[in-house]
Formats: sequence, C-alpha cells, structure tokens
Amino acid sequence: MHKQPIFFLGFGGVGRALLKQILDARELHRSRNGLKLDVLGIADSAGALVSEKPLTDAALRKALQTKIDTGRLPDKAATNANLRTTIAALPKNAIIVDTSASAAAVPALIQAKRRGCGVVLANKIPLAGDLAWWDAIADERARWETTCGSAMPVISTLTTLLDSGDAVHRIEGTLSGTLGYVCSQLEAGVKFGDAVRDAKMRGYTEPDPRQDLGGLDVARKALILARMLGYRLEMKNVKVESLYPKLMDKLSVEDFMRDVDSLNGPMAERVAELTTDGHKLRYAAVIENGKLKAGFVGADPNSKLGLSRTSDSVVVFHTRYFTDNPLTISGRGAGQEVTASGVLGDVVNLSRSMAG
Amino acid sequence: MHKQPIFFLGFGGVGRALLKQILDARELHRSRNGLKLDVLGIADSAGALVSEKPLTDAALRKALQTKIDTGRLPDKAATNANLRTTIAALPKNAIIVDTSASAAAVPALIQAKRRGCGVVLANKIPLAGDLAWWDAIADERARWETTCGSAMPVISTLTTLLDSGDAVHRIEGTLSGTLGYVCSQLEAGVKFGDAVRDAKMRGYTEPDPRQDLGGLDVARKALILARMLGYRLEMKNVKVESLYPKLMDKLSVEDFMRDVDSLNGPMAERVAELTTDGHKLRYAAVIENGKLKAGFVGADPNSKLGLSRTSDSVVVFHTRYFTDNPLTISGRGAGQEVTASGVLGDVVNLSRSMAG
Repeated sequence: MHKQPIFFLGFGGVGRALLKQILDARELHRSRNGLKLDVLGIADSAGALVSEKPLTDAALRKALQTKIDTGRLPDKAATNANLRTTIAALPKNAIIVDTSASAAAVPALIQAKRRGCGVVLANKIPLAGDLAWWDAIADERARWETTCGSAMPVISTLTTLLDSGDAVHRIEGTLSGTLGYVCSQLEAGVKFGDAVRDAKMRGYTEPDPRQDLGGLDVARKALILARMLGYRLEMKNVKVESLYPKLMDKLSVEDFMRDVDSLNGPMAERVAELTTDGHKLRYAAVIENGKLKAGFVGADPNSKLGLSRTSDSVVVFHTRYFTDNPLTISGRGAGQEVTASGVLGDVVNLSRSMAG
Repeated sequence: MHKQPIFFLGFGGVGRALLKQILDARELHRSRNGLKLDVLGIADSAGALVSEKPLTDAALRKALQTKIDTGRLPDKAATNANLRTTIAALPKNAIIVDTSASAAAVPALIQAKRRGCGVVLANKIPLAGDLAWWDAIADERARWETTCGSAMPVISTLTTLLDSGDAVHRIEGTLSGTLGYVCSQLEAGVKFGDAVRDAKMRGYTEPDPRQDLGGLDVARKALILARMLGYRLEMKNVKVESLYPKLMDKLSVEDFMRDVDSLNGPMAERVAELTTDGHKLRYAAVIENGKLKAGFVGADPNSKLGLSRTSDSVVVFHTRYFTDNPLTISGRGAGQEVTASGVLGDVVNLSRSMAG
C-alpha cells in the first residue's frame, strides 16, 4: 500500500467535490491502485485545517460539512496557520493540489516545488502568469489536466504528442462553455443582449458576465497550450477578441446589463460576416506558428470545429501524423464534479509516477 | 541523463517506423526529457540483432537498411540467438517493445514481466488472448495505447477515468478504418461486392479481406477495453457480426472475391434496416454492462458516432461525469507512422514512470 500525502490549496466547489470523491474512492484506490491518499491539510482564503498526521475520514467529512454550513474551515486555531511554515513541514513526497482560482497560491506552489513536492493544478493562473512561475512549476512532477477543458484529456494528449516527437502544427479549441452557448444563440439569430441575459439567468456566466465575454479565460488556456509547445510567451502576446468594448469595463454589472443591447447591431454584423457560406460561429483559442488568438472563428461546416455541437468543448490537434484526420477531443468541458474527477485522475497519475 | 534500455520484438512496418522516429528524436528526448533510448536488440521472425552494449545509431541505421533491402536483420550470428537467453540477460529496467502481430511474442513478454522489465505493446494478441496472459502482462509497468486506435489517446483516457473513480457506463468505438470505409460506401448505395473490391484495390484491407470483414480485429479491441473495465471475459464472450457467412471461410481469396457479390442482396437489406430515419451506418465495438459486441450499428445522426466522419476512428465514453456530453476522441486511427509515434509516446511515458 502506497501512502500518498496530499495538501489542499483552495476549498471551493471543485476542492470540496474532490474531497468527496477521494473519500468515495477509498476502496477503489486500495484495490485498483494499492494507494491511500492521506490528506494532511486544507487551506483556503477563509481558514485552514492542518494536521501533522493524516486527517481521519471523519475529520474530513466534518470539515466538508462545516465549510458548507459556515463557509469556513472548522479548526479555529488552524485558521491562523502560516502557510509557509505548513508547506515547509510537509513531507517531500507530498502533492499540493491547487483548486483555487487565484494568484495567491503561487508562492506556496513555488515553495513546495523547491522542496521537491508534486503539484496538481486546476488553477490556471500560476501557469498563465509570469514565465518565471511557469518555469518554477510546470515540470515532470506537476500535472494540470483540468486547466484547459476540465477532465477532458487535453494536456496529457499534448504531452504525449510532444514526447513522441510528433510535430504539432496547429491547435484549435472551443474551451469556454459560456461562449459556446452565446455562439449557439447568436448563430440562431438571437440578439446579443438577449443571449447574454439568457446565459446569465441560466447561471452559465460568472456573476459579472464580462469575465466570460472578455475572452481572458480562453486566452489563458491558449497561453498554457502554447507554453507547452515551447513558446516563451506572455498574456500580452495573445490576441484576444472581447465581445464588448473596453470602455464598458467602467460600468457596474447592472449598468453593463442595461447597456448591452447597444452592442446588438455591431455584433449581428460581425456574426453575419463570419457565417457566410454555411460557416459556423465558434469562439476559439487558436495556436499556430507561435501566434496565439482567442476570438471568433467562422468554422467550415465540415471541419472538426464546425461539426461539433456548441454545448461540447472541443480541442483539435493538427500534427505531422494527424493530418487529414486531426486528433480531436470533445465532451463536457466544465463543471465542478467533472473537474474534480480530472484533478483526482492527475493526483493518482502523479503519485504513481513519483513512486516509480 | 536517464538511459532507458529498450528491446524490439517485431521489426515490420511499425517497428521500423518506430526505430526511425527514435533516431530522429535523439535531440528532442535529450533536451525535453533528459532521456536516451538505448536499443539493446531487435528480434523478429526473420532473425535478430542483439548486443550487450547499446547499439550505435550507425548500426541501427544499417539494420534498417538491411531489413528493407533483404527482409532480414543484418547480424548473421544473431539470427540464431535464443530469445529466452536474450531476455534473461536484459537489464531489469529494460522496456520490451512488441510491434509484432502474433502470439509468438507472449512467452518473451511474460518472461520479461517476471524479470520486472517494462512492456509496451502495439500487438493486440497478448492482451486479447488468454486471461492468464492479460494478468501477467497488463499492469502498471505496461503500456498499450496503440492497440485500440493507433496513437489516439484511448487507453490513457480510460485509465485516467478509472483512476479518478468515474464510472464508465458505455463505450462505443468505430475502430476499424477498413470497415469505416466499407460503411461509407454501403451508406452511399454502393453494392457490397463493389465496396470490398474497391477497398482491397486501394490497399485498405489485408491481402485477405476476410481478416477485416470478419470483425475479429474490432472484437479484440472491445475485449481489451472491457478487461480494463474489470470484466473477466474471453473472446468467446464477444458477440461478433461478420460481414460474410462462416462457410465462405473455406474459399481461397480469389474464390471469395469472385463470390462476394452473392452477399449484395442480404447486405443491402441489412443496411436499409439500420439506416431508417436518417440513421448512419457504422461498424462499432460496444461495451455496456459487461456485454461486448462488434457489429453494425444504426447511429442516431445527432450522436457522436452519427456526427463523425467515416474516415475517422471514434471512441465515445459515456460516464457518470460525461453524460449529455460524452467524452469523445476521434482522428486517424490507423497507419504505421502514426502508430509508431504512439508507441514512442508510450515508451517515454513508461520510462518516466519507471524512473520515478
């Protein structure tokens, strides 16, 4: 039985789903992988729960319930834990699992990597920020499958393509469920303002829809894939098409939602221009020849992007060996439970690899 | 620099493409993976080339050329090498790479596994044969990505789904390029006999097309996927639909090709029955609830199989977390170079995992 110590950074929806899945998979991991995942602690922006010995399943279940009930972690004393001291005390074979969505995790991640610990990230920010962060974190003892399409095997596939010496010429990916939905509405003739209101009402957008409509999330994914290809690029190198003009950033959410209809006309023109000759409207990350783009594309209806359903996330790899039939991965590309399952897959994979 | 000893079983089209790719990727593996693949030997049914020290790149290039020119391996003495003795002398951290397509490799593979060596298989037979072979070979020190769809990430994806505790409810895969082509022709109204002759003429079939049309290759792939799901099944448990009646097995290839038109009528009826209401004709492996099938399906035109192009191989995973948007992988599912690249990806991945 291999005991794998792990430590949680972040305890939001994905972190909690992950902990539940770990507890539910105890017997599976024992019988299938000869593995026991020992949770040594949890830290998020609202507190911490840290222990020298592995936390018991009862203590973990209690932490889950307390977090749900109170929004905080249970151990009062531990809320003051100094994260730096905590990381310094972790065993060197521990895996830090970052399911937060903030740059605040970066110093802890870098400290853990320097100690020799493994790192699993659902958090895109450490990999899409400074190149120095990338260099410090993204090595063979790190996994980040869920940063570019939830549990879909995008990162592992690209890693294998690169390891095998295949040459990746072009990657295209529709990597935002929210923008996929907006595209399907626009294509169906719905006005932009109505599409945005509808998506917000259904809970498909962030509370401030501009966080999705600005394209930054897709741009971050493009940057992560490009860096894996070896391009030493920063966010400023990604050409991002925002679905609203920059000056609307100053508005409150309410004012933005009221004024969004002013964009109906220009958006309808842009959509018409992209969808001539039966072309399909997609919002995609495109990486080719060191050029990165996040924006609308008019996809040939017989291409992999054009044939895909807008409710799916799709990533297409055009390579030396995958030419006329590019390697394509599609499926559900967002959701807390599916993302947590992808993180758990990463933890098991990295643990196996670190154990040798 | 990690030196990874490897030994080739099989030196046909895939094996030779693999060796060329290894030689071409020397610099990539050094800089990207800190890895040097040391080929200690090659053995196939027409001879061997074995060395105690890693073969030089010059010797390997000469072996490639000699094999192409003469159909044999160069070292006359080595052709008599006893494979058992050779395997027994390999370092315990060696990886055996089986690109043959025969059961003859099985004793060597099992011997190597018992020694603790790693194994990478493009050869389906050891994994689709006796369960005892499966039990001896298919562990964490084995990789077999290319057995079910060439370099498409089918096996690694299923491994991750299982490691993560996701529940795989159903797998469907169109895993034969040959039968995909035949389906596209039948769907277009081409007579069965004409479709078979055409596929044979284009080189899409084995010299004896019955090897494709019988469905055995697809059935083997279904069995491998089912065994990964934990089902203790044998080939006799797979319900296989052959595209020709069993009594035609007695015919010579020439007689079969002459008599194949006698199947046009019944086949046209079967196709009409499957393609009512716009359904699409596919030949698929289907695994669900421990039931295995290789045969025609009439795929809903809006399903992942129905939306796919017949020239693509497609695998669809319906799971607990991938429900309305099942996880789908598609692309080029056959070809010696692309398969070799998948084998090389496996070798690098396994080497990294064994090195810890």
